[in-house]
Amino acid sequence: MTSIQALDAAVVPTASAHVRLRPIDGRGVVIRDGLLADRQRVNREVTLVHGAQELERAGTLDNLRMAAGLMSGERRGMVFSDSDVYKWLEALAWEMGREASPELEALARETIDLVAAAQEPDGYLNSWCQVVDPAWRWSDMKMGHELYCAGHLMQAGVAFARATGDTSLLTLGCRFADLIDESFGRHARVAIDGHPEIEVALVELYRQTGSSRYLKLADTLTSRRGAGMFAGDRFDLSYYQDAEPVRDARSIAGHAVRALYLAAGVTDLYAETGDDALLRSMLLQWDELASTKTYLTGGIGSRHDGEAIGDPYELPPDRAYCETCAAIGSIMWNWRMLLVTGESRFADLLERTLYNGFLAGLSLDGGSFFYTNPLQSRNGKRRHRWHPVACCPPNIMRLLASLHHYLATTSDSGIQVHQYASSTIRAVVPDAGTVELAVETGYPWSGSVIVEVVACADAEWTLSLRVPGWAHGAVLDGQPVAPGYAELTRRWRPGDRVVLELDVSPRLTAPNPRIDAVRGCVAVERGPLVYCFEDGDLPEGASLAEIALQTGTAPVDSGPLAALGGFPGVSVSGVVRDLDRWDGIEYVDVRELPREGTPAPAQLLAVPYFAWSNRGDGGMRVWLPKSE
Amino acid sequence: MTSIQALDAAVVPTASAHVRLRPIDGRGVVIRDGLLADRQRVNREVTLVHGAQELERAGTLDNLRMAAGLMSGERRGMVFSDSDVYKWLEALAWEMGREASPELEALARETIDLVAAAQEPDGYLNSWCQVVDPAWRWSDMKMGHELYCAGHLMQAGVAFARATGDTSLLTLGCRFADLIDESFGRHARVAIDGHPEIEVALVELYRQTGSSRYLKLADTLTSRRGAGMFAGDRFDLSYYQDAEPVRDARSIAGHAVRALYLAAGVTDLYAETGDDALLRSMLLQWDELASTKTYLTGGIGSRHDGEAIGDPYELPPDRAYCETCAAIGSIMWNWRMLLVTGESRFADLLERTLYNGFLAGLSLDGGSFFYTNPLQSRNGKRRHRWHPVACCPPNIMRLLASLHHYLATTSDSGIQVHQYASSTIRAVVPDAGTVELAVETGYPWSGSVIVEVVACADAEWTLSLRVPGWAHGAVLDGQPVAPGYAELTRRWRPGDRVVLELDVSPRLTAPNPRIDAVRGCVAVERGPLVYCFEDGDLPEGASLAEIALQTGTAPVDSGPLAALGGFPGVSVSGVVRDLDRWDGIEYVDVRELPREGTPAPAQLLAVPYFAWSNRGDGGMRVWLPKSE
Repeated sequence: MTSIQALDAAVVPTASAHVRLRPIDGRGVVIRDGLLADRQRVNREVTLVHGAQELERAGTLDNLRMAAGLMSGERRGMVFSDSDVYKWLEALAWEMGREASPELEALARETIDLVAAAQEPDGYLNSWCQVVDPAWRWSDMKMGHELYCAGHLMQAGVAFARATGDTSLLTLGCRFADLIDESFGRHARVAIDGHPEIEVALVELYRQTGSSRYLKLADTLTSRRGAGMFAGDRFDLSYYQDAEPVRDARSIAGHAVRALYLAAGVTDLYAETGDDALLRSMLLQWDELASTKTYLTGGIGSRHDGEAIGDPYELPPDRAYCETCAAIGSIMWNWRMLLVTGESRFADLLERTLYNGFLAGLSLDGGSFFYTNPLQSRNGKRRHRWHPVACCPPNIMRLLASLHHYLATTSDSGIQVHQYASSTIRAVVPDAGTVELAVETGYPWSGSVIVEVVACADAEWTLSLRVPGWAHGAVLDGQPVAPGYAELTRRWRPGDRVVLELDVSPRLTAPNPRIDAVRGCVAVERGPLVYCFEDGDLPEGASLAEIALQTGTAPVDSGPLAALGGFPGVSVSGVVRDLDRWDGIEYVDVRELPREGTPAPAQLLAVPYFAWSNRGDGGMRVWLPKSE
Repeated sequence: MTSIQALDAAVVPTASAHVRLRPIDGRGVVIRDGLLADRQRVNREVTLVHGAQELERAGTLDNLRMAAGLMSGERRGMVFSDSDVYKWLEALAWEMGREASPELEALARETIDLVAAAQEPDGYLNSWCQVVDPAWRWSDMKMGHELYCAGHLMQAGVAFARATGDTSLLTLGCRFADLIDESFGRHARVAIDGHPEIEVALVELYRQTGSSRYLKLADTLTSRRGAGMFAGDRFDLSYYQDAEPVRDARSIAGHAVRALYLAAGVTDLYAETGDDALLRSMLLQWDELASTKTYLTGGIGSRHDGEAIGDPYELPPDRAYCETCAAIGSIMWNWRMLLVTGESRFADLLERTLYNGFLAGLSLDGGSFFYTNPLQSRNGKRRHRWHPVACCPPNIMRLLASLHHYLATTSDSGIQVHQYASSTIRAVVPDAGTVELAVETGYPWSGSVIVEVVACADAEWTLSLRVPGWAHGAVLDGQPVAPGYAELTRRWRPGDRVVLELDVSPRLTAPNPRIDAVRGCVAVERGPLVYCFEDGDLPEGASLAEIALQTGTAPVDSGPLAALGGFPGVSVSGVVRDLDRWDGIEYVDVRELPREGTPAPAQLLAVPYFAWSNRGDGGMRVWLPKSE
């Protein structure tokens, strides 16, 4: 096993990859202050340690100990629970790359040694098989999740190699990958895993090791999908991403996390192979997803049944599934599409998903998690400290620990800033040498972004700043700029500053009229953030079922929310409706409509959606009807 | 085992029962003509025979043969599939009571003999246990469905005794019931079944045999619910109807079929015991269900997840579960509430459910079935000829075969007609002897109902005719009558006729504004029937996502639908919207709304909801937005 000295970044295309933008070494990027910095800090100080305790308490680490022969007992948890350990390890790796920590290092060391001890001589590793039933190996490709777990092991190994230089876990991942290639490679058994994940992992393993064997295996496994191998069971083929060949697919459907993990892998595969049919399919699928199947929060998955993406425009706010892992999968995919195309729409959707559908998955104190993220909850919903299906918590941890990887990229001729946070960004621009930027901003709460060039060589290069799709009337150094990338090509000097002003004042957003479930409703947004209404903030006696918004008056900031991180609240003109005469009447002849009482005007408080259910567990809703 | 000579009816309260109304012997009721008669005919000629073939094909009968030691092999189907056979047998019984048939009798005889052969010496009978794992007996009370299956066996036995006088199956049911009483009676093991059904069956078994042991057992099993015996699994306690004691429950929740079967049993238990706490709970649960958790079609069950009733006002049309069995459970419960209270609202909801949520479950040709019955389908949905979970088809069969039991009742002083069909109704009115009515009507298509007294003794008695809640402006013999029961107390003579005129002209119906999922929409109804819009009937180039209704103009009849049983179509003024400028835009700032093109006026055709998906499998919707 060779490990190429690569960037410390979540996704590192090879030098010959078909990408327009390239990631920046994470060691050069620091998010210093603000919301994202706080989330990274809480992840480090609270969530990662909480994860260690819960993996212990749930028996997930014990399962590996039993596989290693270090203890005996009964295996606990889901068939795929090993992956919880690997994702948590991946989070440790990125976090150690961000800032060394003896405590985290000790946890990582101990756990990697355990994983090494559990691995079988031939490279196989799966505690279910090893502890419960050795004959089970490769027998349940549909729901067994063996390759899925293997993929997460590989991703964790890659993360350690990149972030810390420690290749010991990568070695274990490669040994397993070699066995998988022998077992399922082009000339071996024709099978795939019911849950995509290994595809994206294998491309990264190829990138990290230079071994084209892994890229070929990724291609083989990807190309086998869609043959209907998994027909005839509770779920339809789309659940397993086995309904049609990926190169033919024009629509995205099925289990949301599976669909999005696969899309990330397919996009990576395109990046490394240049296989245009893959990119064509990805672009069509993305268009459909982004314009007809994505929630306002960036959340994806409209159905509890099959944890599935729905039909176009099927976006019920209350029964939204919007698994936190699907938000993460969407961020993974959008980042890869951004690298490949350089188009801002991918960074736009990444931002929407990050600040809403993703961040909502973690409590402000970092100790509890949402699995599903609806946009309406009539009776409230409480985050859980862990979950029998514990895929989301460590997934949140690995994304937060690597969040700084997603701020900026480089091209041959410049640097692109996609996400704004008070940060330092140091990168090598091929045509211009090392560039260091200092970004100062109160984003996402404030829309003023000051970018200062701290260091650069004496050469012309381009600074590109993303103007988000929602940011109309944006101004860069006094000049209006349109959504997309504002590009400034100059011979920059240290000390040069530019100021981007994005209008984050609260606004009302309307849905496409084809979205039946929120017909006649509007939502409140503020910069990249979706806002929501919680029971506890309503006027005395009012209920979430009986308030409406006046769309004639613009919403305004109402000042910091003391009980909610000091985040800005938004005040919206609305009414409390009097629906008493409807009590007991479910449906009625239109000629006999009960007379609605005179609505009482009210100023309604909206709070950031991601912060909901942090002050109790009352009801919540994002979309409210327009008052008539 | 003693069988009391009882009425041929689905529900037969004892002489001392706490009921206001009593069922009529089914031998005195004939539905002669019209929609319901046709559905009974198709059930007899097509569906029952189809059921026999499918039970054979699916291995459901083979399972019993294996249990009886008549064949060997591997058991097939769900753990509860024996109940499919019992429900089908129950349907045969009612159908044979309606009209003798050598073919049906031979099928019944053969199957009852098979059931007898399969029963163990101690009365136990469950093919899963007997064929797959004898040690499994009573080991999985949560999901094993042993008492559920036993309940259906008892109901089938009761049906044969009442409809045909054949008590052989009843004897088998009693033997099993005796074993269950020994195993789970008041002083035996404290357990219940995760799926209610035995409760309602045991009360009927008590009624049929006079053995109070069964009533006590029903009370014991019912009263044990709500102790949280089934805590800690994929489903919450409400799924198993184990979240709170039935006497305390004020709200109806959980798995819809389980909730409704239990409610039917609890209502029967009240009827036979007079335990007021049971009735109080039933009335409160019904109020909540009927005013906040019932679909326009009468369908119940808002969630695929857990097949559950949702929160109040959570009624998504597209993701509605509305299992056909839940419609049947609701009809069972409403009929019992009607007997107990004599109030028309229960007959109203029964009618709504019967003509819409229930009838939609069967294709017009009688050969295929819906399991779920949504009120909107974007891509269409096809009925299945059978289903791995085959609870619905035989449930449909037993209700259709006994439909004539639900038309009318008697009280001491009169006869009440609840559902209208061209029919003969002969009943004994205690104060007035035998009364025979002839009902002539084109109902539900026409609202004219002529009731003629064909025979009666020379005594005063009361004829009560239900005026449905939807029927405003109803007229009885020229006099306006309000919804509820129009009561005519007279010394009737043979040849007397009354004419009830119900206005079935098409109308538009609006939902309670708290029902978020259909905000701003209206639906078309015509008499007791909900109508819907199908893709195939739209103007060229229009789509279901882009049409809207004009509420200022009343919908009108458009004549018989040749391709759809000749049922009357309804023409509604509407528009085809031009939403092209919204393409690609999912959400937008309200200040930048795309301009909607000028809508094109269009006459839109609506067809009866129950008949949808009989001409192909395009999309459908019941609720359409109002055009603005």
